[in-house]
Amino acid sequence: MSDSLPQVGLIMGSSSDWETMQHCAGLLTTLGVAFEQEVVSAHRTPDKMFRYAEQAADRGLQVIIAAAGGAAHLPGMVAAKTQLPVIGVPIQSKALSGMDSLLSIAQMPAGIPVLTMSIGLSGAKNAALSAASILALQDDQVADALRQFRLNQTDQVLNNPDPAG
Amino acid sequence: MSDSLPQVGLIMGSSSDWETMQHCAGLLTTLGVAFEQEVVSAHRTPDKMFRYAEQAADRGLQVIIAAAGGAAHLPGMVAAKTQLPVIGVPIQSKALSGMDSLLSIAQMPAGIPVLTMSIGLSGAKNAALSAASILALQDDQVADALRQFRLNQTDQVLNNPDPAG
Amino acid sequence: MSDSLPQVGLIMGSSSDWETMQHCAGLLTTLGVAFEQEVVSAHRTPDKMFRYAEQAADRGLQVIIAAAGGAAHLPGMVAAKTQLPVIGVPIQSKALSGMDSLLSIAQMPAGIPVLTMSIGLSGAKNAALSAASILALQDDQVADALRQFRLNQTDQVLNNPDPAG
Amino acid sequence: MSDSLPQVGLIMGSSSDWETMQHCAGLLTTLGVAFEQEVVSAHRTPDKMFRYAEQAADRGLQVIIAAAGGAAHLPGMVAAKTQLPVIGVPIQSKALSGMDSLLSIAQMPAGIPVLTMSIGLSGAKNAALSAASILALQDDQVADALRQFRLNQTDQVLNNPDPAG
Amino acid sequence: MSDSLPQVGLIMGSSSDWETMQHCAGLLTTLGVAFEQEVVSAHRTPDKMFRYAEQAADRGLQVIIAAAGGAAHLPGMVAAKTQLPVIGVPIQSKALSGMDSLLSIAQMPAGIPVLTMSIGLSGAKNAALSAASILALQDDQVADALRQFRLNQTDQVLNNPDPAG
Amino acid sequence: MSDSLPQVGLIMGSSSDWETMQHCAGLLTTLGVAFEQEVVSAHRTPDKMFRYAEQAADRGLQVIIAAAGGAAHLPGMVAAKTQLPVIGVPIQSKALSGMDSLLSIAQMPAGIPVLTMSIGLSGAKNAALSAASILALQDDQVADALRQFRLNQTDQVLNNPDPAG
Amino acid sequence: MSDSLPQVGLIMGSSSDWETMQHCAGLLTTLGVAFEQEVVSAHRTPDKMFRYAEQAADRGLQVIIAAAGGAAHLPGMVAAKTQLPVIGVPIQSKALSGMDSLLSIAQMPAGIPVLTMSIGLSGAKNAALSAASILALQDDQVADALRQFRLNQTDQVLNNPDPAG
Amino acid sequence: MSDSLPQVGLIMGSSSDWETMQHCAGLLTTLGVAFEQEVVSAHRTPDKMFRYAEQAADRGLQVIIAAAGGAAHLPGMVAAKTQLPVIGVPIQSKALSGMDSLLSIAQMPAGIPVLTMSIGLSGAKNAALSAASILALQDDQVADALRQFRLNQTDQVLNNPDPAG
Repeated sequence: MSDSLPQVGLIMGSSSDWETMQHCAGLLTTLGVAFEQEVVSAHRTPDKMFRYAEQAADRGLQVIIAAAGGAAHLPGMVAAKTQLPVIGVPIQSKALSGMDSLLSIAQMPAGIPVLTMSIGLSGAKNAALSAASILALQDDQVADALRQFRLNQTDQVLNNPDPAG
Repeated sequence: MSDSLPQVGLIMGSSSDWETMQHCAGLLTTLGVAFEQEVVSAHRTPDKMFRYAEQAADRGLQVIIAAAGGAAHLPGMVAAKTQLPVIGVPIQSKALSGMDSLLSIAQMPAGIPVLTMSIGLSGAKNAALSAASILALQDDQVADALRQFRLNQTDQVLNNPDPAG
Repeated sequence: MSDSLPQVGLIMGSSSDWETMQHCAGLLTTLGVAFEQEVVSAHRTPDKMFRYAEQAADRGLQVIIAAAGGAAHLPGMVAAKTQLPVIGVPIQSKALSGMDSLLSIAQMPAGIPVLTMSIGLSGAKNAALSAASILALQDDQVADALRQFRLNQTDQVLNNPDPAG
Repeated sequence: MSDSLPQVGLIMGSSSDWETMQHCAGLLTTLGVAFEQEVVSAHRTPDKMFRYAEQAADRGLQVIIAAAGGAAHLPGMVAAKTQLPVIGVPIQSKALSGMDSLLSIAQMPAGIPVLTMSIGLSGAKNAALSAASILALQDDQVADALRQFRLNQTDQVLNNPDPAG
Repeated sequence: MSDSLPQVGLIMGSSSDWETMQHCAGLLTTLGVAFEQEVVSAHRTPDKMFRYAEQAADRGLQVIIAAAGGAAHLPGMVAAKTQLPVIGVPIQSKALSGMDSLLSIAQMPAGIPVLTMSIGLSGAKNAALSAASILALQDDQVADALRQFRLNQTDQVLNNPDPAG
Repeated sequence: MSDSLPQVGLIMGSSSDWETMQHCAGLLTTLGVAFEQEVVSAHRTPDKMFRYAEQAADRGLQVIIAAAGGAAHLPGMVAAKTQLPVIGVPIQSKALSGMDSLLSIAQMPAGIPVLTMSIGLSGAKNAALSAASILALQDDQVADALRQFRLNQTDQVLNNPDPAG
Repeated sequence: MSDSLPQVGLIMGSSSDWETMQHCAGLLTTLGVAFEQEVVSAHRTPDKMFRYAEQAADRGLQVIIAAAGGAAHLPGMVAAKTQLPVIGVPIQSKALSGMDSLLSIAQMPAGIPVLTMSIGLSGAKNAALSAASILALQDDQVADALRQFRLNQTDQVLNNPDPAG
Repeated sequence: MSDSLPQVGLIMGSSSDWETMQHCAGLLTTLGVAFEQEVVSAHRTPDKMFRYAEQAADRGLQVIIAAAGGAAHLPGMVAAKTQLPVIGVPIQSKALSGMDSLLSIAQMPAGIPVLTMSIGLSGAKNAALSAASILALQDDQVADALRQFRLNQTDQVLNNPDPAG
């Protein structure tokens, strides 16, 4: 979490999702994106979810990252209540390994989109990078940080070409 | 739809779901269940959905049948806002034939259940029978109608044993 | 299990399902729902299953919860022999993680519905909540207990908003 | 159907399955297998199903072919009530193309097997060939007919080697 | 296509994708988003794809919408070559109905995200809405048009509550 | 393995399948079925496989049980080379948990059937029971043993009705 | 088919596969690859299949293209009997749309590989291109034809950049 | 890796793929195939990937083996930039067990094929055998080594016929 006014709202359906989403938070910090984090459950706290989504734009948030597993209604319902871009992260569920989460998040009907990431850890990290790529359109510091991050990850591969090394 | 005070609220995410759900309505009528029908979209009319769910019990509804396809958040979000039994019907979606609808409806997290039916037409009919089986616990007329319906469908099979006939 | 005349029959296809379904039993107890529990195998004890289903209503049961894995015929066959609402819990199977259980329970043909829950532990808990929501239509004590349970789970989320906390 | 005492009982969950299973009947006739055909619904006529299975051996049947779609409980429940070999044919279902039928029939728990065929038309034909292969162990006429059928289908391929021909 | 300097690059792997993606183009026009459209094939024109992605930001594009079916490498490879937000639309493929397209687009590894839409027509429309929601963060006209579009779609549901109507 | 002339040939594609198939062997022994066991690989020893299948009937075998995982060609290819009933057991594969094995075994084309069991351990046991059910048509000792086995498994459930017990 | 000594053997499990595989034959012709075409069924003509595979190398074939649907054993079994590269084409099956064909062909165990293509028409064409890419390593005419084909398909996209055109 | 001029380029999307692909390298060594190994990421080092593919033929490589997991674009994109045969190995991914990798690699559109192996370890080994089978068309030493390898694996099965042994 950052001291600046948050640009990104990072919410998740359950505190157990933090194990995955802390990697999103960590990467947002690396990229210098100001964010807030909160548990908001579509099913257990529907009214809080609606208030959160309704007030997000007025509170200055520019992107919402919402993670959920299984039926995973959080990203889609938040998207129904705000015009901000909503990035959805499908948590890897126990029985179906996140295939249910992925379909519940990605298969939104025409009219209300969710920007869907891959299942689990890679999705958590990519949500941070996606939020940064959106913010970077108008925030040069984030744009630079994102550029640097991508250069670094390219160099890391280029500098270690031997898989057995 | 019936003139009596509705016992069942039959809602669906899109008017295009009516092609499937009219068979639910037809069977509710056959069983003498008083019901109302309405398009309530989780994503396009989230506030109406919440009001509908919040007021359902006070308005005398005893069971809600909610049909939706794809990400299919309607049944689960209605269930999050009412204590009434919510029966979910997965509409057969275009690309994934309702597998997405089924998982989005059935795979609810612990705490807020949806009573999930089979995909498509059989689910639409079974939603009516399920609602009737719940109402029948305290409504003898519905109980009798359900009993008669089941006897009839059994007789129909018994009286036509030859598949080639 | 409760000393009162059972309102709910909690059955499962194998004693190995108890590891999952004990959480259903625990929640029924929390909600003050009187229930009985029994192993009834569709395939190994078909006659007992039919007797159980046939006598359930006369014995005063109002809802049956049936759990099974794999081909998972128990919920559907019980539903074929009683007019009571039957809630099906798909046990997470070894090879296919409960996808087979889910389809075998949910995809009932028109005429005989099963009220299907999610796969595994969440389905076990939700079966208890679903049974309570049905009983609550006429049992004020269960209605109050269910209301309290839901308020508590909402408060638990509201009071712990920080996922990292 | 044959005039001789039937060796095979060909049953199906719905008269609509006849469109597929008539090809099983036709092939049984070709192979000189005496059989009877009947609609027996697991869900709509459970008692008839149990009687059918219980009496099958005493009535002289040696193999039962049972076809069903969707939740497809018929083959497994018949197998639970008879010691005869039960061949299950998964009917191609509307929404899930028979994947639900296949899993509901094949994924039987240890203790009660169903001899599962492929989905749809090929399964219907193969059920006839499978029944014949079992009967052929003690019925030389069926054995000869099966041998002839297989020689013919081999020759048919050998004599038409050009796919464009 | 618009006369203004394009804000969005709408590309697709094959001209046959236009049948789906014209609905994206139509909605971009409705929302007043300036865009260009072009066939760019990851597999048949890889060099053009790389040039397109490399020059996109310098040419003033702010968002890229990339549609592809089957192995569907276009969105992910474009994302590998630009820092702009890339929205991926899984075209409904012939054999696997777009499940392959969805997984090939959504399941990106950590480091390079694609903002994935639902399969087919709804995904095409939602890509336009997603692009608009990103542009709206700094473009008031697009923000207003998006707000109006969403109000209209809500009103359309509210004003037609009877599914049978 | 038994000293009597084998009635059943139990083959498997790899010695690693023995971990699963030993439970088939154990149950065949329990049921008094004479059998032989052997590794026969469709892909690594195709000629041995064909010889095995060709000679099976002349050697007195009446049923072949063939287990394989992944592409799992063994059961189908043996069935192509013998008229004997061939029971196929899908081994639970590493990546796809036996879904590939199940489809490769069950989805045989019209003309050459395989009697398919469930995936893994339950399929291994059920293969023994299926073989016994076929042999029992003409072998009273096996018929009695099978009857006793089924009575026992029924009694085991009936005598332990409390899942928590 | 070509008059030259065939370099490629194009076989398929059924004459009905020709509808798909004629596009493979057409492309082989375009590329100047000499080939022969023949129906060879793994299940109906296993001995012919083995002879075909055994003699292929001695007859001068350098690559075998084998197409099959459903259980689709042809490519894998041919690969078990020859050291030549075997390219497998999964035919789009009726019930499961070729997912069964794909898994049965691709999921070969370690030791005997099949070079698997995509499902259906695209796989048929790609099999021709794959065979050409292998032959091109030592056949300059095929190498040139392949180079020309690829240039043409690139140009076709480059010259028609407007999807709406 | 070999000292000779490499015939095969073995590349993979991440150094974590080495755990699987070392078994490919080991088998290439066993077969006397000269190869090089390198991490080349489609998403993190797209330019290196294109250079690698562009220069492969001129550098004397005859076959490229490319392994990747998840969206797995590496094999297909390399194939888009070279005329050499490209063998794709789907790495077993965390959430979806390699089903995403398999579809992303196998489901290439007409025009650019990838020679797809099975998921994971068996695919890694089979990639080595496939490369050898292609090289063997013109390299007698590799042909002999491959022949010997296959004889050995056949003998290993033939000499250990007892699965319990």
